[in-house]
Amino acid sequence: MEVIDGGITSPKGFKAAGVHCGIKKERLDLAMIYSEVPAKCAIAYTQNKVRAAPIEVMMKKDPNTLQAFTINSGNANAITGVQGVYDANQMVSMTAQALGIKDTLVGVASTGVISRFLPMDKISTGIPNAVRSLGKGEEADDTTARAIMTTDTVKKQAACRVTLKDGTVVTIAGMTKGSGMISPAMKVLHATTLTFMVTDAQMSKNFNRRWQDVMDVSFNVISVDGDQSTNDISVFLANGMAGGRPADDDPSFWEGVRYVAQQLAKKIVIDGEGATKLIEVMVRGAKNPVQARSAARAIIASSLVKTAMFGADPNFGRILAALGNSEAEFNLGKVKLVLRSNGDSVTLFEDGTPTMVAGSEVEAKAHQVLSHKKVIIDLDLNNGYSTGEAWGCDLSYDYVKINAMYTT
Amino acid sequence: MEVIDGGITSPKGFKAAGVHCGIKKERLDLAMIYSEVPAKCAIAYTQNKVRAAPIEVMMKKDPNTLQAFTINSGNANAITGVQGVYDANQMVSMTAQALGIKDTLVGVASTGVISRFLPMDKISTGIPNAVRSLGKGEEADDTTARAIMTTDTVKKQAACRVTLKDGTVVTIAGMTKGSGMISPAMKVLHATTLTFMVTDAQMSKNFNRRWQDVMDVSFNVISVDGDQSTNDISVFLANGMAGGRPADDDPSFWEGVRYVAQQLAKKIVIDGEGATKLIEVMVRGAKNPVQARSAARAIIASSLVKTAMFGADPNFGRILAALGNSEAEFNLGKVKLVLRSNGDSVTLFEDGTPTMVAGSEVEAKAHQVLSHKKVIIDLDLNNGYSTGEAWGCDLSYDYVKINAMYTT
Repeated sequence: MEVIDGGITSPKGFKAAGVHCGIKKERLDLAMIYSEVPAKCAIAYTQNKVRAAPIEVMMKKDPNTLQAFTINSGNANAITGVQGVYDANQMVSMTAQALGIKDTLVGVASTGVISRFLPMDKISTGIPNAVRSLGKGEEADDTTARAIMTTDTVKKQAACRVTLKDGTVVTIAGMTKGSGMISPAMKVLHATTLTFMVTDAQMSKNFNRRWQDVMDVSFNVISVDGDQSTNDISVFLANGMAGGRPADDDPSFWEGVRYVAQQLAKKIVIDGEGATKLIEVMVRGAKNPVQARSAARAIIASSLVKTAMFGADPNFGRILAALGNSEAEFNLGKVKLVLRSNGDSVTLFEDGTPTMVAGSEVEAKAHQVLSHKKVIIDLDLNNGYSTGEAWGCDLSYDYVKINAMYTT
Repeated sequence: MEVIDGGITSPKGFKAAGVHCGIKKERLDLAMIYSEVPAKCAIAYTQNKVRAAPIEVMMKKDPNTLQAFTINSGNANAITGVQGVYDANQMVSMTAQALGIKDTLVGVASTGVISRFLPMDKISTGIPNAVRSLGKGEEADDTTARAIMTTDTVKKQAACRVTLKDGTVVTIAGMTKGSGMISPAMKVLHATTLTFMVTDAQMSKNFNRRWQDVMDVSFNVISVDGDQSTNDISVFLANGMAGGRPADDDPSFWEGVRYVAQQLAKKIVIDGEGATKLIEVMVRGAKNPVQARSAARAIIASSLVKTAMFGADPNFGRILAALGNSEAEFNLGKVKLVLRSNGDSVTLFEDGTPTMVAGSEVEAKAHQVLSHKKVIIDLDLNNGYSTGEAWGCDLSYDYVKINAMYTT
């Protein structure tokens, strides 16, 4: 696998565009992805029982093949009743008409403020404009990735190249958006994430299950207990234009897909609303994988842990208290807690006793470790052989600011 | 039931004291409650698997009768290993010796910073000092309630008087501490709550189950999913000094107990770290009580709802999105959402459609309703006959500030 500096149009046959149509005041707000030929697809939807109109529309279509996807930002078209569903279907039809393809080959997604009707006049001029702007290369990648952003502060894209068993070289690329206090305070990924990945590999079978497996080791590691927004969707399109034999069961191919998905997921965490630090929790020595994950998630979801990380405060008691509220079984006397960052590490708790005393050298070291941009909380339960991880960010003043003032 | 302006020494035979022994720099940090005769007791403990030393000690004793309780603040004696258990037992012995009673009649609790050893030299001079200071009346109530505070900004006490069936007048009083972002972001009551309630009523049977029922309609309504700190404890002492027949099954008595407990629980919410508003969620028309509670708790636990409340932002889509992540079954087309405050009310969603449009009169009204100190989120699912409620507070800048800087 070769990591490349690319985006959504890197694989053969994919074009894209990001334009401004007026939903937002100035920034890009309408994105389109287009494949020269119909592409096989796998889609994962939000499990929230309150579903946005575009999600309703897509779940009803439940397509196996798509050729284009239109995404608007700035307005989620969620909790908009019958009118919202009508508008989402209109977005499909307008896109199909402007591209000269069938309605069945078009997907739609929306993200932004909830419960306001879509400004369809603006979207109806934006869609033909996006079609005219479709292109390949760095600029197309950039504008498209920026057109799906809401509170994101940076665009998020990743790409790689993989050589399959038969020698075919395929490209896998993706973009995502989302920044809403991920794996947060509320144990949920609350801001909408939209993820689009594309490849020119050939697929001969349904790959929904494979796509779900990829989600489970990427976006579902940051979405702490599976709660999701009304608009979440993740789409994987494969148009086969690289030729060669099908990639369905090629391990290298799925390694590449996993790599791109994990890169995108981590980019969401690091852009968490107000985040100043990436926190990775690694739980080892758990009785089974469920307990390992439960422990990792309880820690990453604790507001007290997250605020302590923001303050570079080695209040490791909060980490152990969060562990105590998880489903993991352990004997505190055997638990070992180490903080790592930037090659440095410091042991804070071992053999049932804190190794850090106020004012000690260990405390000074802990402060130093916590001052870095990426901190690993490494917890060994010494109670089995399973590991689990979760990724999150710290909780800062800015998180409150961003969310208190979102619509007003 | 008559509400009275009293505190922990209001019932007959109870004395108390709050002193400064030096765990905190200046504020009161050691409290003692004493009954002239041994009192029957019921105790509920934290369910966190990481238990503080005093909790370990009390669970091992599991007393039915106590005469005194010593509580320190400023240091939780949690995650302090074998030394911590030794220190907690020392607190018991020192109290028993200073009062001239048996060790078995003494309870202990601690709250404050985690994983630092108790300064036993300070506690050993503080305990005899507290015994000497034991008294009755307003000043004793006040200093005792303040001596158990940590990040609390106000002391929390409540009391009432009840006439039993046989004409006996009994007094019920209590104090509590806790302010840690209750029913918060993290769906948990994360800061320690310590609750002490006392009565001079006569009890002839074990009342642990009754005490648990009282917790379930008071403190467990603010502790969103049962997660608790390492130090939580709630104690109810009954010394029988009012005389008369036993109050065990007297409905008026338990009504009084419930009243005092609910008052104390609400005082915790309103003193939530950085809180500016009390939020009560009332879910009606649910299929069953479990679903009603799940919905109420999902809403009160949502950081996005809580930050919107802080910003007086009628972003009601966040309330419905939180509902969608709960276990409640509903048809969005039948859901009705009303905000109430101070006699005012505004309907934001009905018949599957938002009734609030940006810039409308309804939006102006919603802002007005949200500007008050107490807001009721009234959600009718129209899907059954069960109700459920949850109490919480908003999420402000100050919450982050308090928690980022707690130990440093």
